[in-house]
Amino acid sequence: MSAVFFLDATLQADTFLVGDLALSRVLLMNDARFPWLILVPRVAGMRDLIDLPRARQHELFDEIDRAARALRELHSPFKLNVAALGNVVAQLHVHVIARRSDDDAWPKPVWGVGAAEPYAAEVRDAELARLRATIGIAAPG
Amino acid sequence: MSAVFFLDATLQADTFLVGDLALSRVLLMNDARFPWLILVPRVAGMRDLIDLPRARQHELFDEIDRAARALRELHSPFKLNVAALGNVVAQLHVHVIARRSDDDAWPKPVWGVGAAEPYAAEVRDAELARLRATIGIAAPG
Repeated sequence: MSAVFFLDATLQADTFLVGDLALSRVLLMNDARFPWLILVPRVAGMRDLIDLPRARQHELFDEIDRAARALRELHSPFKLNVAALGNVVAQLHVHVIARRSDDDAWPKPVWGVGAAEPYAAEVRDAELARLRATIGIAAPG
Repeated sequence: MSAVFFLDATLQADTFLVGDLALSRVLLMNDARFPWLILVPRVAGMRDLIDLPRARQHELFDEIDRAARALRELHSPFKLNVAALGNVVAQLHVHVIARRSDDDAWPKPVWGVGAAEPYAAEVRDAELARLRATIGIAAPG
């Protein structure tokens, strides 16, 4: 594809940039209630998982695995939630969320539950640094 | 692992058996409001996606792709939802759901929205037959 990848404006507004893996842009959702990453394959025009070529699907799964392992290491969640929904933001993106059995949404899914709690700047910066170190991703230049 | 795989009792009660792929048991959720498949890797003791060995993860992604393509072919959804949550049923399972922009939950996720509408027997049997033919899965013996 010759089209250029652009990150959806809503995803951009709602998140902080962790960095880029080989395929995916990794974002931290600006909601301190949940350790919540979003992976966006940097391929233009993708909408559903099955729109990705097979080799890219495997690569995406490997990156989901890296992101999920980092959340497990950093947050010791009771459960990991992994989901590609895209009902509101159509651009293909995958949520990877560390859930606690006493978090604000448990046992429901997190989407649409209450209002996001924006990170304090110092907490955000510390979390981004820990995520980059644990995932093994360079800080954006 | 030497442990034997058993399907979680809640999953069994809420679904119909489509059949077995190489890795996953494929189930049809008994809720006629949404074309909704569930894939359960037949590996004992799995809880999160990252519990699966890498090669099995790729195999699972390939089976998710097959299930999603079948739903797209049969139901022409506006969007596919793919999710491994497991907050209520801990056994690793992946939802693959065909969404319409006028379905009962849109644009929200389907979980916890209203009450399931059980299939009429004839509709269920027709849907199971179409799914088996389209996914390429043998009817259970």
